[in-house]
Amino acid sequence: MPIIVQKYGGSSLADAEKVRGVARRIIAAKAKGDDIVVVCSAMGDSTDDLLALSRQVATTPVEREVDLLLSTGEMVSCALLAMALNDMDCTAVSLTGLQAGIQTESLHGKARIADVAPERIEAELEAGKVAVVCGFQGVTKAQEVTTLGRGGSDTTAVALAAALKAERCEIYTDVEGIYTADPRIVPEARKLSEIGYEEMLELASSGAKMQPRSIELGELYDIPILVASTFSDAPGTLIHREVAMEVRNRVRGVASDTNVAKVTVLAVPDKPGIAATFFEQLTDAAVSVDTIVQNTSVEKLSDLSFTVDRTEIAKALAVVEPIAAKVGAGSVTHDAALAKVSVVGTGMQNSPGYASTMFRSLADAGVNIEMISTSEIRITCIVSESQCADAVRALHKAFELDQD
Amino acid sequence: MPIIVQKYGGSSLADAEKVRGVARRIIAAKAKGDDIVVVCSAMGDSTDDLLALSRQVATTPVEREVDLLLSTGEMVSCALLAMALNDMDCTAVSLTGLQAGIQTESLHGKARIADVAPERIEAELEAGKVAVVCGFQGVTKAQEVTTLGRGGSDTTAVALAAALKAERCEIYTDVEGIYTADPRIVPEARKLSEIGYEEMLELASSGAKMQPRSIELGELYDIPILVASTFSDAPGTLIHREVAMEVRNRVRGVASDTNVAKVTVLAVPDKPGIAATFFEQLTDAAVSVDTIVQNTSVEKLSDLSFTVDRTEIAKALAVVEPIAAKVGAGSVTHDAALAKVSVVGTGMQNSPGYASTMFRSLADAGVNIEMISTSEIRITCIVSESQCADAVRALHKAFELDQD
Repeated sequence: MPIIVQKYGGSSLADAEKVRGVARRIIAAKAKGDDIVVVCSAMGDSTDDLLALSRQVATTPVEREVDLLLSTGEMVSCALLAMALNDMDCTAVSLTGLQAGIQTESLHGKARIADVAPERIEAELEAGKVAVVCGFQGVTKAQEVTTLGRGGSDTTAVALAAALKAERCEIYTDVEGIYTADPRIVPEARKLSEIGYEEMLELASSGAKMQPRSIELGELYDIPILVASTFSDAPGTLIHREVAMEVRNRVRGVASDTNVAKVTVLAVPDKPGIAATFFEQLTDAAVSVDTIVQNTSVEKLSDLSFTVDRTEIAKALAVVEPIAAKVGAGSVTHDAALAKVSVVGTGMQNSPGYASTMFRSLADAGVNIEMISTSEIRITCIVSESQCADAVRALHKAFELDQD
Repeated sequence: MPIIVQKYGGSSLADAEKVRGVARRIIAAKAKGDDIVVVCSAMGDSTDDLLALSRQVATTPVEREVDLLLSTGEMVSCALLAMALNDMDCTAVSLTGLQAGIQTESLHGKARIADVAPERIEAELEAGKVAVVCGFQGVTKAQEVTTLGRGGSDTTAVALAAALKAERCEIYTDVEGIYTADPRIVPEARKLSEIGYEEMLELASSGAKMQPRSIELGELYDIPILVASTFSDAPGTLIHREVAMEVRNRVRGVASDTNVAKVTVLAVPDKPGIAATFFEQLTDAAVSVDTIVQNTSVEKLSDLSFTVDRTEIAKALAVVEPIAAKVGAGSVTHDAALAKVSVVGTGMQNSPGYASTMFRSLADAGVNIEMISTSEIRITCIVSESQCADAVRALHKAFELDQD
């Protein structure tokens, strides 16, 4: 029988009544004749509650113990969902990461899945049961419990879909899919019926958020991923490879993110290896750098700017300032009140007109552009945080995203 | 180095501050030069909270899923305690039942430990760490999670002490040890400095409660068990084999229990096999029968009485009434407002004077005896619940237990 993997997020399982509601959805899906594997996140805010508890007992909780602690959240939701299913006469069995054969590398807090041994799940499906698998967790070869990082249940679901050769992976959440822009900013934003994997990676801020690794994994194994709401029967957004011809080569949506800070090193001497020094040491300090821009040099001096998450600004400055002094650069400035606005669409690099449309519409809306960067499927402008919403609305209109 | 196994109950770990307090006790114990293995129960009332949640999602939660659900309680407390210890510069590692090698039979809700593979714990101790083991849980050979029943963490602790050839097992709880009677009933009750295993089994109602299987295991493997308070440095009660000569052959304490109901089948025909029929079917219905008394028959008819937990009275009657009708017995009566009062002491069967002292002092206190039963180390009277406290006080005084 075809296998469907369904993943339910924490807000879908926030209390006993919601758990029973999810059980009813699963039973309806199974009644269509598919074998169902379910992946659960922890209930509601329970992961945050456990993290808060860990900070009450220790200043810097050891990551290995945080992993065991957090892994209990998914065991609770899976055990409860399996109970609810059995109570409704649908035979179901919960499986921990270990029991489900989810083996990871030996890294706590953000382990990657090394291998999935699907035999136990296959045996449970063979026996006619629904397999309810703990998301977000795995075990190392030495049976140490690991977790996959925030949003890791998405990755569990897609990895299981790949290992089980499932027909589809369905991600159920509290929004109805992926939109042309964040509907809280642009009321006319439309839900997309389908989208490609790479576009989804760029647009994840516009609607349902998913762990980026899960999208990459979906692309790698060619798993169609449906993102839809737990609380409605609206059709959702299908993420897959074959996006219809007529929607290619156009802007699919506008993404935005206000968690952006910029660091600028002024008057950097134009010698080989200096940029490398900065970014090597930022990497060593585990500061994740997003957009990087270096201006053309004037008199052998150039300005180097890069963006980081706002929470990492202090860490970034602590790395950059000593290096700037050492290499004889000018002062280091920063701005923590920025935002990132992107237009996204496969194939847009073939049509240079998109960039000029973007810059013109931002200018007309009075939005000043601080930095620009581009990828094959995206043009990004860094703008002032206070102008982010205006920028998103202007772009959504300019690219006619409100029209089907 | 000598190994000490310490077990901390739920009330000892009820919040973050108590967890840190337990960590300080462990560090002090380790500073004395012993290797320390810690067994934790779930924090405070968390097991009851999880059970309540299970009843919200399912009318009759499947036992397999209840076991996974409940097992998370001990994972949380162990992870937090290990974090707290590391935070105080004491290297510690939490171990789930699986990781600690606790293998059980395939029975959910009340599995017995089949084997302990102590290699992982030994390796952690060898590496200088404190091993913090999840009590109450184990895994079957097929890696299914099981639990050991209420109080199962005591059994985990004693089983680990046996497998690790520990010098001692220390049970830390919210009372200071075992008393000559329940101190809430008899204010003059004294804490016993030592007691034998069998006496402890009978006296567990007078102070610290322990899972009876843990005491039996302690006796089997000759593990000295210290019962003491987490919240004081008072010396506690040592349960061990070699009780000093001068305290043998005397009453050690008075036990009482008000969770007692009596069922009586009147005028049972005196034919072989009738009693067996009643108790076989009660066993099949999982009704646990305590005291049984059958009077000498008069004219081939006898009255059969037995006691059960009050919560089981309806189940017991449902079993007994049809059998009584079938075998031609008289009516079935019951009384749910009873209590059990026992005097306990090794070797008292050698001194018949104890029984007469007991009956005389109860009569003097105006307490009516409903049933009597005896064992090698105990004389038990079933009395009215309303007279239980009077009975305990009278016996405590009659056997001079208030005197050292």
